Amino acid sequence: MTYKEPIFDVAQLSHVEIFSPRMDESLHFFKNLLGLSETERDGNSVYLRAYEDFYHHSLKLTYRETPGLGHVGWRSSSPQALERRVQSLEASGLGKGWIEGDRGYGKAYEFVTPDGHPQRILWDVEYYQAPEDQKTKLLSRPQRRPTRGVPVRRLDHVNLLASDVTKNKQFFIDHLGFNLREHIELDDGREGGAWLSVSPLVHEIAFLGDRTGKGNRLHHIAFWYGYPQHLADISDIFVEEGIRIEAGPGKHGVSQAMFLYVFEPGGNRVELFGDAGYLIFDPAWKPLKWTQDQIEEAIIWFGSPLPNEYFIYGTPHDTPPYQAGK
Amino acid sequence: MTYKEPIFDVAQLSHVEIFSPRMDESLHFFKNLLGLSETERDGNSVYLRAYEDFYHHSLKLTYRETPGLGHVGWRSSSPQALERRVQSLEASGLGKGWIEGDRGYGKAYEFVTPDGHPQRILWDVEYYQAPEDQKTKLLSRPQRRPTRGVPVRRLDHVNLLASDVTKNKQFFIDHLGFNLREHIELDDGREGGAWLSVSPLVHEIAFLGDRTGKGNRLHHIAFWYGYPQHLADISDIFVEEGIRIEAGPGKHGVSQAMFLYVFEPGGNRVELFGDAGYLIFDPAWKPLKWTQDQIEEAIIWFGSPLPNEYFIYGTPHDTPPYQAGK
Amino acid sequence: MTYKEPIFDVAQLSHVEIFSPRMDESLHFFKNLLGLSETERDGNSVYLRAYEDFYHHSLKLTYRETPGLGHVGWRSSSPQALERRVQSLEASGLGKGWIEGDRGYGKAYEFVTPDGHPQRILWDVEYYQAPEDQKTKLLSRPQRRPTRGVPVRRLDHVNLLASDVTKNKQFFIDHLGFNLREHIELDDGREGGAWLSVSPLVHEIAFLGDRTGKGNRLHHIAFWYGYPQHLADISDIFVEEGIRIEAGPGKHGVSQAMFLYVFEPGGNRVELFGDAGYLIFDPAWKPLKWTQDQIEEAIIWFGSPLPNEYFIYGTPHDTPPYQAGK
Amino acid sequence: MTYKEPIFDVAQLSHVEIFSPRMDESLHFFKNLLGLSETERDGNSVYLRAYEDFYHHSLKLTYRETPGLGHVGWRSSSPQALERRVQSLEASGLGKGWIEGDRGYGKAYEFVTPDGHPQRILWDVEYYQAPEDQKTKLLSRPQRRPTRGVPVRRLDHVNLLASDVTKNKQFFIDHLGFNLREHIELDDGREGGAWLSVSPLVHEIAFLGDRTGKGNRLHHIAFWYGYPQHLADISDIFVEEGIRIEAGPGKHGVSQAMFLYVFEPGGNRVELFGDAGYLIFDPAWKPLKWTQDQIEEAIIWFGSPLPNEYFIYGTPHDTPPYQAGK
Repeated sequence: MTYKEPIFDVAQLSHVEIFSPRMDESLHFFKNLLGLSETERDGNSVYLRAYEDFYHHSLKLTYRETPGLGHVGWRSSSPQALERRVQSLEASGLGKGWIEGDRGYGKAYEFVTPDGHPQRILWDVEYYQAPEDQKTKLLSRPQRRPTRGVPVRRLDHVNLLASDVTKNKQFFIDHLGFNLREHIELDDGREGGAWLSVSPLVHEIAFLGDRTGKGNRLHHIAFWYGYPQHLADISDIFVEEGIRIEAGPGKHGVSQAMFLYVFEPGGNRVELFGDAGYLIFDPAWKPLKWTQDQIEEAIIWFGSPLPNEYFIYGTPHDTPPYQAGK
Repeated sequence: MTYKEPIFDVAQLSHVEIFSPRMDESLHFFKNLLGLSETERDGNSVYLRAYEDFYHHSLKLTYRETPGLGHVGWRSSSPQALERRVQSLEASGLGKGWIEGDRGYGKAYEFVTPDGHPQRILWDVEYYQAPEDQKTKLLSRPQRRPTRGVPVRRLDHVNLLASDVTKNKQFFIDHLGFNLREHIELDDGREGGAWLSVSPLVHEIAFLGDRTGKGNRLHHIAFWYGYPQHLADISDIFVEEGIRIEAGPGKHGVSQAMFLYVFEPGGNRVELFGDAGYLIFDPAWKPLKWTQDQIEEAIIWFGSPLPNEYFIYGTPHDTPPYQAGK
Repeated sequence: MTYKEPIFDVAQLSHVEIFSPRMDESLHFFKNLLGLSETERDGNSVYLRAYEDFYHHSLKLTYRETPGLGHVGWRSSSPQALERRVQSLEASGLGKGWIEGDRGYGKAYEFVTPDGHPQRILWDVEYYQAPEDQKTKLLSRPQRRPTRGVPVRRLDHVNLLASDVTKNKQFFIDHLGFNLREHIELDDGREGGAWLSVSPLVHEIAFLGDRTGKGNRLHHIAFWYGYPQHLADISDIFVEEGIRIEAGPGKHGVSQAMFLYVFEPGGNRVELFGDAGYLIFDPAWKPLKWTQDQIEEAIIWFGSPLPNEYFIYGTPHDTPPYQAGK
Repeated sequence: MTYKEPIFDVAQLSHVEIFSPRMDESLHFFKNLLGLSETERDGNSVYLRAYEDFYHHSLKLTYRETPGLGHVGWRSSSPQALERRVQSLEASGLGKGWIEGDRGYGKAYEFVTPDGHPQRILWDVEYYQAPEDQKTKLLSRPQRRPTRGVPVRRLDHVNLLASDVTKNKQFFIDHLGFNLREHIELDDGREGGAWLSVSPLVHEIAFLGDRTGKGNRLHHIAFWYGYPQHLADISDIFVEEGIRIEAGPGKHGVSQAMFLYVFEPGGNRVELFGDAGYLIFDPAWKPLKWTQDQIEEAIIWFGSPLPNEYFIYGTPHDTPPYQAGK
């Protein structure tokens, strides 16, 4: 029997669009506290990036009455890889067709997850060029490290609430070449969560079972610090600013991430990732399966527990969005 | 013109063999200070691994009168990928042929760099199985975190001294599919150093120009902590144990690594890597070129400077090996 | 009116004695995980110290069927200061008289808190002398940094459960010259907790209201790391060893401490202190009063919440001692 | 013979005045990079404080053509203690008399060190009151943690270049009650440096032998972070801003400080202190004496070495002030 070779057609999570009903407060949060820079504005949208994000933007923040996910953007590993993935997506029945692109990137192919979460895949991107006074001698940094807030370094991953984890997970494996890294098996046999990646990161995308049954919602987006101290630093500032921390700092068993969960003022959950977790280089990685009796360690290896709300709240949601202030 | 698609055939650095003329002291260093565990002994060799290394060993320490590199081991991303690379290596004229393997892995193909550094590439590996009292609930960790020394988490990369950086670099690009991530261009047009990888890490292998002209030597092997505090912790212990620190802690411009360089008692230089540096997800990454006038920031972004010896000393070497003690 | 000058007669917390019904497991915890060294054994007691504790011992661990506090040891700032404090203690009615001392110190005066917690105050101490192979070049360190576990640096403070916080607090102010640094005022007007010190530390001793009403119990003893990363490191090891973490890592409002609470296998609560908190140099410090509506921030500024048990459990206790294992 | 009791009359270093010939750049450095807040301006002076400094100011920055020390301010531990110290200072022949005070404090007594460094000692201070939008729920913090730069927490110590270390040291011991904590004895019998304190800190003041022979100069002032990561964070920003780092991050043997030395744009050396070093609670502390053969470990325990300039450069100085830019 022939060994099934891995697919390397998706290279990375390139950007995410989220909706906020409170643009000014959300922008204060992302720019002054997390140190994101604004690249451009267009209509109801503001394009933002962290200081080690190389492209035009990694976060598009768009005004809408209800918070939630706009779309997730993926970059292929070559133009040919994009064509191959589009063929597969079209065959899946979940493809939506080509669009002309957006600020910061060219033509993109739209599709949805089985749950309906909007996605785009693309090849052409525009690289960010820093203005003169933001140029740095550090070649691997597209701009200087900001002196505002506790600046995050790059977009890390996205986590989506799904009505059926297995279906959504399998779609990413089959049609986009993702690898399942870790998952949770509940006592009733259903998958409670699945973490998938195309790189040594444990996940660029995860699906969590939506206990409300709704699905097609955003659980959180995550930005990366890489240094645990920064989770303490930004926590200190969040408390003083009245930004609600949901959980953390702590360490997950899944992914070994040093985490902090917080609600941006628009109501979306944001994770801040304080280290590199562990990285997967084994090409024949066998997915780690956490069973229900191991779930405690899976969720929290040590530190702050997750409140029940963590497993229920996503955006959009039925209850009023979280306010600035505890 | 067709876009040249990347090659994904090499998955990772799987192990390194180094020689030590002082096995007892070297073993004390790796086991009691860096927290490596011994898997097996065989003749003049001891097989070791860090606590988050998944295979039988990541370091083979072999007695020899002179320190230096035994060989570097690479794992392919599939059996087919191994065949493709072997074909290319054979065509390169630097292939040496198949061997039966070693403790911890099956058949492997031997080759050398243009300089002559021995290399192996393989697919079959044996996974480490922890004894009962070392089993952990953290599924992504093949054994418990040791309580000896300040334990490193995994093998990270290898750095080789080359008589001609460009030739060695190009060989890894052409025949193994490595990507050039950063390099240094000297005023005379020669390449002073090149950092290459097959993953988002900035390098699994680097070549530094050997200023003695010899080439075919080991500059250093590197293990990974992921937390900068551990560089301070292990420095504290090294000073008290009389282990000579060459440089660091500090931060490189190249790779953004938080580094510490030290000589293990056998005389080989070992780097300890204190964070994740930055990670490269851009599939169309353009190599960062540091010119001679930028070299200061390339080498040291901040912190401890590198002594001249850093650019001259490698193993084997003409002068007596470094002793334990300052 | 004349300004009342401060009293500087007590210099420091010099040692604590605690009881353990499981000496072997407790010794494993303190020696192999927290890196304490054993100085001497005597009958049912083992004398221990952290690697930057300067005297013969800072922890005396004594076998007894029930965990709890043996006694707290204070060192005066001079022989004369000792005489002055003894005079005041005798006048207080809570003095018990002189004893000949113990291993590591000479004659000491015994007294109790209003609740009955045993205390000693003394001047003569024996300095620890490291054996040859433990001598270090770092003059401010009485021995080398251990390579076992994640070693704590010194004893930091003691926290006692009191039936009446105010009475116990006032006794330390009046008879020992402590300064009240922070306290909690409950809605019913009672003090919920008080933190007192004779140095810039926020506390060498604290009293918490015992919600069971019993009082005269030990809440916890605390050792000092000074580096937040070490709380994560030791947490990692505690989880794998089955040592129960009660709360943390997190940051208290009171004292600004980065904390971790854990149960040593004998059943006593131990705090690990991950930074320096803030230090008080103002000689006219006005005690910070947290009212009930501010209590949330007082207790947890950010991070892991405290379980209800934190406010009820002390040693000795009515329920069986905590077992190793979660 | 009677034991000589310690003097506790000086409580703390309360503020420092330094001169800058480049006020705008110096203010950018202290406010935007180190996060100090401006309390008030008066003529050629700007009054600044760190966010955990409790009084009106801890740093007075005054325009003058040449950088250097304005004066050092000490707070006594009571009004009576002030009177006692003034009596002793007057007897010393180095007293200068009472002044009316300055912004932020009332009457103060002026004196000089044997070398001539201006000093003031005082009791009455004005406490800082944060404006509404800077009030915080953290009672031990007089204002919110700033979101500018990498904010330091408080003034820590001052280090003065002396023509004769012993004479200056002895003056602080005899007339102000300081304790000698550590000192360096050179081969010729002279003291190379002395670190003194009135609190558990290893020093609020140090004297270094001025190798130029001049003396009466400022070596550096130091601010406190308490977290080593912040030294890396601010280094990153200093490099990008062109602020010259002289040495560090590294760890001193003396005081065990995690240090970073940098030149503020006015030309004065500033130290940033990244942890708590070790704290001295032993009331009978015997000064640690480093001899010339131990000096290497005294100066640098690990990390970045100190350049020769460190032992020669102070302010004022003969060469032009350091420029912004490397």
